[in-house]
Amino acid sequence: MTDIALIDAAAARLSGHARCTPLLSSPFLDAIAGRQVLVKAECLQHTGSFKFRGAWSALSALPQPALKSGVIAYSSGNHAQGVAMAARAFGAPAVIVMPADAPDVKIETTRALGAEVVLYDRATQDRDAIGTELAQTRGLTLVKPFDDPQVIAGQASVGLELAEQAARSGVTSGEVLVCCGGGGLTSGIALALEARAPSFRVRPVEPEGFDDVARSLRSGRIERNARTSGSICDAIITPQPGDLTFPILHRLCGPGLVVTEEDCLRAMALAFQRLRIVLEPGGAVALAAALFQPDQSDADTLIVTASGGNVTPEVFAQALATGQAASSRSARPLTR
Amino acid sequence: MTDIALIDAAAARLSGHARCTPLLSSPFLDAIAGRQVLVKAECLQHTGSFKFRGAWSALSALPQPALKSGVIAYSSGNHAQGVAMAARAFGAPAVIVMPADAPDVKIETTRALGAEVVLYDRATQDRDAIGTELAQTRGLTLVKPFDDPQVIAGQASVGLELAEQAARSGVTSGEVLVCCGGGGLTSGIALALEARAPSFRVRPVEPEGFDDVARSLRSGRIERNARTSGSICDAIITPQPGDLTFPILHRLCGPGLVVTEEDCLRAMALAFQRLRIVLEPGGAVALAAALFQPDQSDADTLIVTASGGNVTPEVFAQALATGQAASSRSARPLTR
Repeated sequence: MTDIALIDAAAARLSGHARCTPLLSSPFLDAIAGRQVLVKAECLQHTGSFKFRGAWSALSALPQPALKSGVIAYSSGNHAQGVAMAARAFGAPAVIVMPADAPDVKIETTRALGAEVVLYDRATQDRDAIGTELAQTRGLTLVKPFDDPQVIAGQASVGLELAEQAARSGVTSGEVLVCCGGGGLTSGIALALEARAPSFRVRPVEPEGFDDVARSLRSGRIERNARTSGSICDAIITPQPGDLTFPILHRLCGPGLVVTEEDCLRAMALAFQRLRIVLEPGGAVALAAALFQPDQSDADTLIVTASGGNVTPEVFAQALATGQAASSRSARPLTR
Repeated sequence: MTDIALIDAAAARLSGHARCTPLLSSPFLDAIAGRQVLVKAECLQHTGSFKFRGAWSALSALPQPALKSGVIAYSSGNHAQGVAMAARAFGAPAVIVMPADAPDVKIETTRALGAEVVLYDRATQDRDAIGTELAQTRGLTLVKPFDDPQVIAGQASVGLELAEQAARSGVTSGEVLVCCGGGGLTSGIALALEARAPSFRVRPVEPEGFDDVARSLRSGRIERNARTSGSICDAIITPQPGDLTFPILHRLCGPGLVVTEEDCLRAMALAFQRLRIVLEPGGAVALAAALFQPDQSDADTLIVTASGGNVTPEVFAQALATGQAASSRSARPLTR
């Protein structure tokens, strides 16, 4: 189980390897939200998302023979890149199982990071069967995307960092809004803050139509999404919260927040204009909630995770177009 | 005159107010450049450019009565925003003199930061005459954009930071490529490195057609640009190097590098894709030189300043379009 000792140990292994990402802010964003907004820019992490932390934490906890045999992951996105880059640093072979219809650029990037990409047909083949056979025949260790104690401990290092950074700015309480898929980042941050900065409350944020965590927190048991595709927030779409993450989320987090895709795009445009960072839609849900749902919180300060920035030029251009009206409205006089 | 004592004093005044911006990297950029490339992301500084540092340094060096009377600056861009935001923090009135045809969003942003914007007609009015009269009648202190010892000292803090950050990554020598307009940032970094990390060589980078500094370094005397408008790199276009900055540049820096506008746009697209930061064209010239002019240096490591990120959605979309072919080519296997 992940606890503060496991988190501290993971943070020590990550030190000097993961970036301590900056906590950004803009008076223009504060004016829109009506309160202080601090943005933990994990899009600036290696491979462009927080996933590098969990992957590094998991690989650095493996014994040398397991590293030598190699690792395997199922992912078409940020987890794949995190595992590939960490494996490369440890000299471990990495096999990434991806659907054959994944975007070319993701396949190429993962290969360029040194991983072997095994493609499967989503319509006719069973990913888990392919992965299990590969793992057994080649002695590969599976690195799960979120439901693994060492992965959760790695993501938790985001919570340790943001608590220290906020304290240096004089902020010791408030709400921490976290972009939430399977709950690895959200549960990790919640455990870190429970131990080190318990005056913060962690709230998961999800896109409309894929709010399994918000519903699970309300009902008190794991609820599933009706669909697992069809969202621009693809990076944080999972069938349901994890067996390890949900009990942590249930004990420490909530209530969940749910945002529209249009608000994600507007948040991406404001992050472009006011913070000069690149966010992907799934990495912008927490900022969208902070900016456009002021009635959902009474905290003086909101800390939001900007969890990833791997976005195509096409989707980014769509965000800029969506945001242009909103960004001109936001240039009103500041009151702070 | 700016020396290391003035720089250390400015850095101390900036501490806790300017952001220590991250030094970013990507194996994909290293592969393109054929060497290690480290990017000092000053686009993440307050107001989106390094100019905040110089403005804060200058204002924090003023006596209280001068602050109370207020400050004035001539700028339509990053210097205006830096002065406006610093003045707001010090409670100092700020007057910014801008051409009436400056983009609305820049005028609105400067006003939103609390400054009084005075517009003038470039065709019929003399900016300096307007500014001088305002300064005299209202007792305002002029904050020059680069040719001021305290402004240079403030920009020099970028050099102190990047030397420390590079050393923590084991890098203690190489070339530092700096986006260069009037030379405030370039000369400041050069002075800081001369004192603290003299194994680094500083090289100014300018856009084609506006290479006054490169030509001045070659001839040994101040040379002018034929034009001072008509570049997408507007943030770093000045008539000529400054009277204070040029002797420093001449003693410590060079040779200058010159890049095309198309390479700036390609560099912006790669910074978007690989570093997830937003650069403006003038803030991307150093990265463009590092990536696309490998024959111009024999250093193992290039540190580039990414000096600003205030760019319109239209120009950014143009950069993404320019870069799409280049970015797919860059996803080749990495050798490091």
